Amino acid sequence: MLLLHLSDVDEASWAERFRRALGDYPVVRRGDRFDPADVRYIFVWKPKQEAFDNLGNLKAILSLGAGVDALLQHPGLPDAPIVRFVDEDLTQRMSDYVIAHVTMHHRRFSRFQQDQKARRWTQYYPPAASETTVGILGLGVLGQDAAKKLKGLGFTVRGWSRSAKQLDGVECYSGESRFIDFLNGTDILVNLLPLTPETTGILNYETFLQLRRDGLDGGPVIINAARGRHQKEADIVRALKDGTLGAASLDVFEVEPLPEDSPLWQIETCYITPHIAAISSERTGVEYFSRIIRQHEDGAPLINVVDRTRGY
Amino acid sequence: MLLLHLSDVDEASWAERFRRALGDYPVVRRGDRFDPADVRYIFVWKPKQEAFDNLGNLKAILSLGAGVDALLQHPGLPDAPIVRFVDEDLTQRMSDYVIAHVTMHHRRFSRFQQDQKARRWTQYYPPAASETTVGILGLGVLGQDAAKKLKGLGFTVRGWSRSAKQLDGVECYSGESRFIDFLNGTDILVNLLPLTPETTGILNYETFLQLRRDGLDGGPVIINAARGRHQKEADIVRALKDGTLGAASLDVFEVEPLPEDSPLWQIETCYITPHIAAISSERTGVEYFSRIIRQHEDGAPLINVVDRTRGY
Ligand SMILES: NC(=O)c1ccc[n+]([C@@H]2O[C@H](COP(=O)([O-])OP(=O)(O)OC[C@H]3O[C@@H](n4cnc5c(N)ncnc54)[C@H](OP(=O)(O)O)[C@@H]3O)[C@@H](O)[C@H]2O)c1
Ligand SMILES: NC(=O)c1ccc[n+]([C@@H]2O[C@H](COP(=O)([O-])OP(=O)(O)OC[C@H]3O[C@@H](n4cnc5c(N)ncnc54)[C@H](OP(=O)(O)O)[C@@H]3O)[C@@H](O)[C@H]2O)c1
Repeated sequence: MLLLHLSDVDEASWAERFRRALGDYPVVRRGDRFDPADVRYIFVWKPKQEAFDNLGNLKAILSLGAGVDALLQHPGLPDAPIVRFVDEDLTQRMSDYVIAHVTMHHRRFSRFQQDQKARRWTQYYPPAASETTVGILGLGVLGQDAAKKLKGLGFTVRGWSRSAKQLDGVECYSGESRFIDFLNGTDILVNLLPLTPETTGILNYETFLQLRRDGLDGGPVIINAARGRHQKEADIVRALKDGTLGAASLDVFEVEPLPEDSPLWQIETCYITPHIAAISSERTGVEYFSRIIRQHEDGAPLINVVDRTRGY
Repeated sequence: MLLLHLSDVDEASWAERFRRALGDYPVVRRGDRFDPADVRYIFVWKPKQEAFDNLGNLKAILSLGAGVDALLQHPGLPDAPIVRFVDEDLTQRMSDYVIAHVTMHHRRFSRFQQDQKARRWTQYYPPAASETTVGILGLGVLGQDAAKKLKGLGFTVRGWSRSAKQLDGVECYSGESRFIDFLNGTDILVNLLPLTPETTGILNYETFLQLRRDGLDGGPVIINAARGRHQKEADIVRALKDGTLGAASLDVFEVEPLPEDSPLWQIETCYITPHIAAISSERTGVEYFSRIIRQHEDGAPLINVVDRTRGY
């Protein structure tokens, strides 16, 4: 039996799709009558306090989120394996966001918009893509796709991960000891890390100071599309104001929705989007998790299982 | 002998580079003493009225511009073949511009910027790239590179040219008879045509009305990085105001610099850049034209010769 426990999304609609996809296999929702001992899979998004109570026979916890940082903090989380969402459509949408923001900053939109407001015709020529280095924090599913696409556009691309990597045309750095070297050659910093104790607050003033200062005219840029708690917003405000950063694109925030009194809203070089970089679609989500349930019931091992000691 | 005749750029600097690149081969500038009968190649940018006077032994006219529309209007233009500039670096820069503007519109920056100004947190999710069709006018050197890169990002791409083309993953339309069909499925229209009598004013209200209306939320978009006289600015103003167009990015204008009283400056959905999409670099320009001169002196045929009857 599959139990759905989804907050803030249309659970009924997901349930209907799962029923169509799984045929005979029983699918229930929180309010339904069922014996908790029959639940083998639970599909969760922002689970409530009691979500996992009495589920004594769980085979897997299925997470609608690609990031599991919040889920891992759940006080009632049982010991079952956690399968996270990994999906081409989600990856495509994230790369759409990343490319749009990297290229906007590379082509100095802030500058041209200011000129336009002043009706000023000033022929400034942005550098060629190859002259600009994009540094990607995190070379997982999302980071690798963004890296490949940025490379295809002609950018110089580097990336940073925990374990050593080899990616065609991408300069790969790994581990804390290479973090500063990685930052020193980066003009545009893109964050696609998972949120863990090690990565919390990684986008801070000290980090910004290490970015390349003689690269992009206007100063280095950060783009955060991972988690709000990766960033120290007070540091971003300070860095945008004192010129340590030339611009920032933020899709995520320490507190969401971003409070009305946040100073970020009115900084012209800060580009705010309301956590919309990439959404999980019902269609591809149901396809993915139904396949996992069916194959696991047939004896196949689970895929994309979270490593709880690493925290992602 | 190579004669340089360049306006609005640093002719002395170009001359110096040409001398270094061509060694023994004589290079002169307008003010220098030389016999016009000795000039075999003239390298021009915005040539003056008398530029070609008395050059009785010209083997080729070398054009710094990739577009030769203005040159072809020169009243003293001799009958020698015209070689235009075709260059990877220039092409790269143009694609940088095109990708930055296509992705910005696809990700609905105007909308998110308005929300930000109002401190509004509204979770609107842009479509995936594959759900948006970019239509490229002109599938020459620049159009093909942009098409290939947009395809690599996952966009649905179509293009329009004079003669029939086959390009991997790009839906190709050709000729006037297919123009409307091409427009009908296009969400974001990118102009990379040469300016000829046939293409003058092609970006007009009638054209905008043919773009797909149920594609991009906010309405269809145009991007013009070719020539100002491709567009009817009064029509663009009207279309942006009445919603026929959702947004426009313009790098070129009917009159440049764009006059201070143009209404385009203050339309928020119009993104103005001052003819900076792509610049010819001295380094690659001298490499390219020196190679052409040397090889032609050795008996090789000229490349990238303009067809005067087509006008490009
Ligand atoms: N804003 C949104 O709409 C949105 C949507 C989806 C996802 N996200 C976020 O994006 C994150 C990344 O997703 P993903 O699928 O790409 O994750 P992933 O495949 O697990 O990749 C994570 C990458 O980060 C690296 N990493 C983790 N901890 C590190 C550390 N301490 N130092 C250096 N590198 C470290 C990993 O290194 P190794 O390769 O060595 O393991 C890996 O390369 C998710 O966790 C989620 O928070 C946001
Ligand atoms: N704003 C800037 O900074 C900047 C910089 C560089 C260039 N440009 C402009 O960009 C233009 C394009 O450059 P390019 O190197 O790509 O030129 P190109 O290689 O000559 O390609 C021109 C393309 O337009 C097509 N075309 C021409 N007339 C047409 C018509 N009447 N109907 C349909 N298609 C037509 C051609 O079709 P066929 O393939 O069938 O011949 C060809 O595909 C230049 O002419 C220049 O004006 C602007």
